[in-house]
Amino acid sequence: MARTRVHNFFVSLDGYSAGETITLDKPIGEAGRLFQSFDGRFIHGVHAVDAPITFDRALTSTWGQGIGAEIMGRGKFGPQTGPWTDDGWRGWWGDEPPFRTPVVVLTHHAREPISFANGTSFHFLDASPADALEHARGLADGQDVRIGGGPSTVRQFLQADLVDFMHLVTVPIVLGRGVSIWDVLAEVQDRFTVESTTSPSGLTHQFWNRNR
Amino acid sequence: MARTRVHNFFVSLDGYSAGETITLDKPIGEAGRLFQSFDGRFIHGVHAVDAPITFDRALTSTWGQGIGAEIMGRGKFGPQTGPWTDDGWRGWWGDEPPFRTPVVVLTHHAREPISFANGTSFHFLDASPADALEHARGLADGQDVRIGGGPSTVRQFLQADLVDFMHLVTVPIVLGRGVSIWDVLAEVQDRFTVESTTSPSGLTHQFWNRNR
Repeated sequence: MARTRVHNFFVSLDGYSAGETITLDKPIGEAGRLFQSFDGRFIHGVHAVDAPITFDRALTSTWGQGIGAEIMGRGKFGPQTGPWTDDGWRGWWGDEPPFRTPVVVLTHHAREPISFANGTSFHFLDASPADALEHARGLADGQDVRIGGGPSTVRQFLQADLVDFMHLVTVPIVLGRGVSIWDVLAEVQDRFTVESTTSPSGLTHQFWNRNR
Repeated sequence: MARTRVHNFFVSLDGYSAGETITLDKPIGEAGRLFQSFDGRFIHGVHAVDAPITFDRALTSTWGQGIGAEIMGRGKFGPQTGPWTDDGWRGWWGDEPPFRTPVVVLTHHAREPISFANGTSFHFLDASPADALEHARGLADGQDVRIGGGPSTVRQFLQADLVDFMHLVTVPIVLGRGVSIWDVLAEVQDRFTVESTTSPSGLTHQFWNRNR
């Protein structure tokens, strides 16, 4: 049974997980402080980096385990809005996007797929969450699908009851504004069993496992 | 830089991590209660099993990340002592040993290597910890080496200052007897930075990272 998983979903104490306005300079809007606690070098394993293995990093390392495809919102792929122009944009990540699997990018505007040598490919799709998930499963070769964000995309998949597992990380800072997650979690929390623990760094990790 | 790592080293409150006498019926002596808290199905990743992803299981899943070889004591391979007899023993694990890499078995008695279709192979070696580690590194293809136990083997590698990382798990039970780890940790603790957190299950996870 393949799962749909959310990983490393960082949320402030007041429940905000990204800024409302994405620009080329600020890919996650005003919420950059959230991600100062996040060491993305560990998404491919605790051995990947010459740095101490901490709990936060060990939990981060589950990000790619058994993942065959990701689904992301357009804002995670780039700052543009409206129809695509021929500007050569291939995502924020240069020649080595960290995904190493097919990625479905949700957008109302069609575009040809893009492929990279490291196994990453971007597929642009105008679809509902359920249809996007079906498409991603077709690309995932029987493995799990990750909902990669941003927060508005995670909200949509939670509301459509398409998330089996979510690793939510509460960061002890107050942002004051952004895209909130609390209201949708209030709606869906009864579907999940939630485990919570705080690591010595001050991050509170929550594992939300959907009840069967 | 390849590391030498210990994973899922389970210890009782009184510091015992295995029974003193290993038999075919009791591979870890009298300490079986320690491992009732351990879900070995997750050593190859959080996606590997159709069961909720808990913190304990997520931390367990770091076991195989970037590991190219294991070193184990003879007692982990089998209950026999003295020269090997032609009894067909190929380890406790049947046709699918969970290692999937070369494994160096420390023994004073020579024996031909054994190979399995899933990538596991056992190489029998009479050597000091330092020499065994050098041999394992030669088999590990640049990846990390895991010291797989039992506790006496972990003790030897700690005393020889050959351990870079150790995931120690304290289980809230009292065993009363067995192979103790506290005395050697008293000797070596100053070489490490220790991070500790307790998961909702009651297990206390410690990550020991060697100082540089």
